[in-house]
Amino acid sequence: MRSRHAYRAACQPRRGRAVSGFGDTITALVSRRESQLVLGIDPDPGVLWPGAVRDEQAESGGGTPAEGAAAGVLAGCRALIDATAPACLAVKFQLACFERLQAPGWSALQTLVDHARAHGLLVIADGKRGDVPVSALAYAQALFDGVQTQAGFVHGLGADLATINPLIGGDAVAPFVAAARGRGSGVFALVRTSNPGASDVEDLLTADGRPLWERLARMVAETGAAGVGDSGLSDVGAVMGATAPALLMRARELMPHAVFLLPGVGAQGGKVEELAGAFAPLQGPARRASALVSASRSIADAYKATGSDPVSAARAEAERLRTAAWEASG
Amino acid sequence: MRSRHAYRAACQPRRGRAVSGFGDTITALVSRRESQLVLGIDPDPGVLWPGAVRDEQAESGGGTPAEGAAAGVLAGCRALIDATAPACLAVKFQLACFERLQAPGWSALQTLVDHARAHGLLVIADGKRGDVPVSALAYAQALFDGVQTQAGFVHGLGADLATINPLIGGDAVAPFVAAARGRGSGVFALVRTSNPGASDVEDLLTADGRPLWERLARMVAETGAAGVGDSGLSDVGAVMGATAPALLMRARELMPHAVFLLPGVGAQGGKVEELAGAFAPLQGPARRASALVSASRSIADAYKATGSDPVSAARAEAERLRTAAWEASG
Repeated sequence: MRSRHAYRAACQPRRGRAVSGFGDTITALVSRRESQLVLGIDPDPGVLWPGAVRDEQAESGGGTPAEGAAAGVLAGCRALIDATAPACLAVKFQLACFERLQAPGWSALQTLVDHARAHGLLVIADGKRGDVPVSALAYAQALFDGVQTQAGFVHGLGADLATINPLIGGDAVAPFVAAARGRGSGVFALVRTSNPGASDVEDLLTADGRPLWERLARMVAETGAAGVGDSGLSDVGAVMGATAPALLMRARELMPHAVFLLPGVGAQGGKVEELAGAFAPLQGPARRASALVSASRSIADAYKATGSDPVSAARAEAERLRTAAWEASG
Repeated sequence: MRSRHAYRAACQPRRGRAVSGFGDTITALVSRRESQLVLGIDPDPGVLWPGAVRDEQAESGGGTPAEGAAAGVLAGCRALIDATAPACLAVKFQLACFERLQAPGWSALQTLVDHARAHGLLVIADGKRGDVPVSALAYAQALFDGVQTQAGFVHGLGADLATINPLIGGDAVAPFVAAARGRGSGVFALVRTSNPGASDVEDLLTADGRPLWERLARMVAETGAAGVGDSGLSDVGAVMGATAPALLMRARELMPHAVFLLPGVGAQGGKVEELAGAFAPLQGPARRASALVSASRSIADAYKATGSDPVSAARAEAERLRTAAWEASG
């Protein structure tokens, strides 16, 4: 069951009026939860938490492999969210991992979105979508509010944030921003990702002698200008890989009002302690809310290194990351 | 029911041995069907063919709005495929339009993929996916073969081709190419799209004085070099908007072995007659197979202009486009 109105009300900023935009919502929420940690959920259906999924899988006996796998992923991810929610601000769902389980995967995703929301967590739909305007609008309907049909209104996934790919241009980004802004949500546009191959295109020098990603950063700043709230933060944010901290200070110059989503912490080599340059030159709560640290495998797989049970190990690693990020933003 | 082995056998090239790669498969298929036409399917669940969906929607009475809408989309798209299949080579499904109907949308998509295949059509999953390597692999599993799970093997969508976004870099493209190549399928990487905003990023001049899309074209050529078949065509193709025919000759210089997917014909303003420059400097069947013309709304909505029934109007428009493309490639 959705309870978006109640959820929004809980996130109202201190002045007591309605939330004006996502930048203000996230500032209030980071302050209240004292966390900038994003739990990345990208389940491998061949490797799930030992012991976490047995009951659910037994229940699904007789279903298709996709139904059985989706039930296992649902149980494993629910356990992971339950273990770490108190330390987190948000959950980021890697859509690819659910799509590969076909329709049952998409159903499991919807259940997990609602579960994360019940924990008071923001939901990030990490699909890195991008298409020509009419198709971008359809994606925005899928991930945010939904669409009117001849059979009635079909609700969307109900995400608070979606990652988008800006290669196709400003008119392809606009439908996502409009859909998000209209409901007090936000987007994160890819600017400089965390993979080694990011140098192939994103770092390509343009005619003005600057790398391409700086042009993408300017697009983020321009598109987000109309969505800057009282907090100083905008509803158009940027994905900046945590694996290249040297670029973060330059990115912050170009996007002073953007919330940064920083994936790549842990398994991909990024270190929270090196991310201080990612935070915006703002005061107090807005500064803390200006950069979100995302970790996936380092939390879910923490038990492999510690030898303790998965729940305790994930909780401990999430708390460690939460504290490290909070100190880096102080 | 899938019958991929029978399907592959039907596409064997003339020498009688197994298909070595997608370039040879498509060359044989274009020759056999005498068509380079791609039927674009991007259903608007608020506007479906009048009369085409009533029975299905009545059957779904009592379901959720998503189930009812998906049933309507399924019926409308099945009618559209049935009407136009003889004139077409392939069906291109815009994934966004199915995702916005959530899990029932994904189920409808799978049914339509199988339906298109039963007509002997190639299936293009148009999702423009792109992500860091581990997630790109998950997308490839979703769209192509599938994934092994603890509950058994979960089949993928079974597409023959997928559109991908290369912004994130070569290591993000590689998992798609490897998955496609391993099963005799292919990919289309975005190079220069059909929307007005394509000039924002894709046309940006790089330090060597050339537009960014030319760098993407070189990536396509380099990645596809190992996948060039006896036909001279590769399994790594390019999305080149049909709305900018002046760029097609330059694109062909840079990607002599790539199959071009040319969206934007009709509703977006592209004209088949202006696309002669898109075809590769190859002989006979391979030349004809080197560029595929994609049309969506101009086929599905043809009845609005002609006043005839939707089925007849769509069939006539598809035949007209098929003939025009065949002549342009002659």
